[in-house]
Amino acid sequence: MRGLLVGRFQPFHSGHLGLVEGIRRRAPGSDLLIAIGSAEQSYTWENPFTAGERYEMIEAAVREAGLDHVAIVAITDIQRHAIWVRYLEGLLPSFDRVYTNNPLTRLLFERAGYAVESPRLIQRSRFEGIRIRNRLADGLSLEDRVPPAVARYLESIGASARLGLLRGPRGPLRT
Amino acid sequence: MRGLLVGRFQPFHSGHLGLVEGIRRRAPGSDLLIAIGSAEQSYTWENPFTAGERYEMIEAAVREAGLDHVAIVAITDIQRHAIWVRYLEGLLPSFDRVYTNNPLTRLLFERAGYAVESPRLIQRSRFEGIRIRNRLADGLSLEDRVPPAVARYLESIGASARLGLLRGPRGPLRT
Amino acid sequence: MRGLLVGRFQPFHSGHLGLVEGIRRRAPGSDLLIAIGSAEQSYTWENPFTAGERYEMIEAAVREAGLDHVAIVAITDIQRHAIWVRYLEGLLPSFDRVYTNNPLTRLLFERAGYAVESPRLIQRSRFEGIRIRNRLADGLSLEDRVPPAVARYLESIGASARLGLLRGPRGPLRT
Amino acid sequence: MRGLLVGRFQPFHSGHLGLVEGIRRRAPGSDLLIAIGSAEQSYTWENPFTAGERYEMIEAAVREAGLDHVAIVAITDIQRHAIWVRYLEGLLPSFDRVYTNNPLTRLLFERAGYAVESPRLIQRSRFEGIRIRNRLADGLSLEDRVPPAVARYLESIGASARLGLLRGPRGPLRT
Amino acid sequence: MRGLLVGRFQPFHSGHLGLVEGIRRRAPGSDLLIAIGSAEQSYTWENPFTAGERYEMIEAAVREAGLDHVAIVAITDIQRHAIWVRYLEGLLPSFDRVYTNNPLTRLLFERAGYAVESPRLIQRSRFEGIRIRNRLADGLSLEDRVPPAVARYLESIGASARLGLLRGPRGPLRT
Amino acid sequence: MRGLLVGRFQPFHSGHLGLVEGIRRRAPGSDLLIAIGSAEQSYTWENPFTAGERYEMIEAAVREAGLDHVAIVAITDIQRHAIWVRYLEGLLPSFDRVYTNNPLTRLLFERAGYAVESPRLIQRSRFEGIRIRNRLADGLSLEDRVPPAVARYLESIGASARLGLLRGPRGPLRT
Repeated sequence: MRGLLVGRFQPFHSGHLGLVEGIRRRAPGSDLLIAIGSAEQSYTWENPFTAGERYEMIEAAVREAGLDHVAIVAITDIQRHAIWVRYLEGLLPSFDRVYTNNPLTRLLFERAGYAVESPRLIQRSRFEGIRIRNRLADGLSLEDRVPPAVARYLESIGASARLGLLRGPRGPLRT
Repeated sequence: MRGLLVGRFQPFHSGHLGLVEGIRRRAPGSDLLIAIGSAEQSYTWENPFTAGERYEMIEAAVREAGLDHVAIVAITDIQRHAIWVRYLEGLLPSFDRVYTNNPLTRLLFERAGYAVESPRLIQRSRFEGIRIRNRLADGLSLEDRVPPAVARYLESIGASARLGLLRGPRGPLRT
Repeated sequence: MRGLLVGRFQPFHSGHLGLVEGIRRRAPGSDLLIAIGSAEQSYTWENPFTAGERYEMIEAAVREAGLDHVAIVAITDIQRHAIWVRYLEGLLPSFDRVYTNNPLTRLLFERAGYAVESPRLIQRSRFEGIRIRNRLADGLSLEDRVPPAVARYLESIGASARLGLLRGPRGPLRT
Repeated sequence: MRGLLVGRFQPFHSGHLGLVEGIRRRAPGSDLLIAIGSAEQSYTWENPFTAGERYEMIEAAVREAGLDHVAIVAITDIQRHAIWVRYLEGLLPSFDRVYTNNPLTRLLFERAGYAVESPRLIQRSRFEGIRIRNRLADGLSLEDRVPPAVARYLESIGASARLGLLRGPRGPLRT
Repeated sequence: MRGLLVGRFQPFHSGHLGLVEGIRRRAPGSDLLIAIGSAEQSYTWENPFTAGERYEMIEAAVREAGLDHVAIVAITDIQRHAIWVRYLEGLLPSFDRVYTNNPLTRLLFERAGYAVESPRLIQRSRFEGIRIRNRLADGLSLEDRVPPAVARYLESIGASARLGLLRGPRGPLRT
Repeated sequence: MRGLLVGRFQPFHSGHLGLVEGIRRRAPGSDLLIAIGSAEQSYTWENPFTAGERYEMIEAAVREAGLDHVAIVAITDIQRHAIWVRYLEGLLPSFDRVYTNNPLTRLLFERAGYAVESPRLIQRSRFEGIRIRNRLADGLSLEDRVPPAVARYLESIGASARLGLLRGPRGPLRT
């Protein structure tokens, strides 16, 4: 038995961690695989962190929370929704349960015959990636919006300055 | 401290496992990340197994050997040697030591400034991927060439028949 | 003599069918090739249907209308306007006449030396893809905006629910 | 009911046409879709003809043989065997039966749950693509190895000179 | 000693030329390499000119200004910010100084350890690509916004009509 | 008037330089553009040098020979022969004459309507890339097979050791 949690994790926040904790509680003996989507994206306003940085955030948060049986993988995108689930199947070990709060991810997995669970997020609006990125860009405290280990990691890589720059004075930067 | 072991693992054999065990002994407190290269390749004579299948082989062998602090990722190829190491850096958490017996992989990492260790393989010729694939295709026993857990996994997916077919009567098959 | 009609057909509507009928009338003895563009796109608000689904819509509508000498192909995009026409030439049988109402498609074909016809669309605004997708997402009747065969096909694949989901509560969904 | 016949058709020869005729006889009321694989390949020794040229060969042979309910599509490759069938499903209208003499194609479709028929080829060795390309490169007659319509088409595009050049004096040419 | 100036140059305008002249003055003995980014883009509102057309604009302007030791290259994008600088390093001769006014380009080069200079642009707003494209689309004079040689080139290729079309009546055109 | 010389230049040798000198003599007033093909390839036995390294070799040899009006560009491959010339046209400034000794390159340009010149190479066998790479790998002197400036450059980057490694003990290395 292995569950799969798919997301972009830009950044990995307390809502994501709560999801992982809930999954561990409901299926304590099983493995959980966290797949970092759009792994090739970074240094954009929508996807500021590299897959490697996101891996480190997740790893640090999971360790801090004392969760085990959690593995992490990074998945580069293929830009083809119709076969995206089949593409994941080829890259990942077998899984029998999918967790996501993204409705399109849910649609694509259900179309491929998977059972999908969309755990209810408490205080969803506090945990939206875009809001957290805006707080980072504004130099505001993330308070309890991200796990302490993620807050420390973000500070260590100068995330606030990076986000402020990527947001741009007149819209997101591009080369 | 994290070490990185890169390979294609077609299949993951006892030589690979010996490498992992040696690394664990020499650096018992550190993490080891096993990166499955050419993840997009499968169902060819050179690369018969999907990245997901290779993930399961490695996972089963590592568990059977009682090794901990080992994580697995799959890496799709970018076909550009000059930036391959930089590409890995963007996809993976930070690592400070690289293990490989592939001389080109060694060259590319050293050119990028990494310390690379190439552990001596005992009985190297017994553990070449091509020889093991030929034994599989011939329906011969793999004996101790692969860990028992890998042998069971290969049997469960019908690897022998697949390899026999992919090798082809007059050279490797293609669509 | 073969004519080429290029479009994305998201979905294939009565305006498209009127175009095909007009072409058949003006050149009754010649072949018409309908090329489905952006074939790799699906399950997005702009491109909700797979190329295969679009193929089936067009096929059903053309049969229902009793039109012959019509063939269908799907074309994956190469994202390079400067060579797009040359790319089509390599994938398609030879053609000597191009039909389109898309001004950029017209520009690219004319630049490559083709005669391009842009048949006048009657009641153009009723037959815009975006309007028809919005009606689908809203659960409104498509009335005579699509051929009956297309309406039946869209219902058979649950197009209304798919479109409603892809449009999203706060903008088009993404993974 | 629709059958799918997949091949590279470099060139479309009498063995292929015999296959199509056999399929039409066994399933006279159903549609047959001929998918031209590796459509992006051309001007190499292995794949000398563009997808468009192959489309014209097939079309001419099918017309000459008086076969109906046959449609043709070109499929660019994605170089990922594990999801190739799913990729085809997204690009093509639905099909319920697959015809092929390529064992890898057969393996991939069967793995995806399709019924696959591999009609027996009479005089297989006479109808191998490589042999026919060698005869073309040598300037030898193709006799009854290709349908008359294909022979005329090959002559019209100067195929013999092209093949002679692509085979190269010391192995296939490359840029 | 070689400096690198990176930009999209849609089109190459007097602000760009002023930059090049300033660089030549400050480092008269050294080489300057002008890299045309997003070379694969053309015939869109954001990127209307092909890389070849942009090459000709730059070449004509540099000749007209009597500047020497200037070379031009076109760089197709890889859509991966994390390795973009490393990708450039593989394609270009060695360089030790980077000039850019794009803050994201500056960030990516500084992260890779390069010294980056961002020369102050005089009258920046007059020399924004988007403003110059809008003037072209409106059929207005470019006055001194582009070097005379660029103005002549733009007229010779019918840039005004192209831009007017690409801007579209209701937003940028797409196929 | 601008001529185009296309090659892979692995490495740029005296045969190539002789070609350039011959072109300069025959068309002294015109520009010559040297396009480095397969620019994305490097660190393989067939393509050991990066595009940037090849750029530097050509630049050094051209300067040493006192040739002017020569520009250099790097071209990443698109793996589609049918549109390769059109792809080059989009990336390069206009050219009206093509020089090459590669018969496939010649075929593709002639098919696109270009005048192609294939200057006779004196002592062709001495100037084959494969022979020069083998001499490098064997640590033999290149004598007059490459221009002195190229010999110095190859030594400065440790080309002999790289080639020896890439050739491999049992065939070319791969990751």
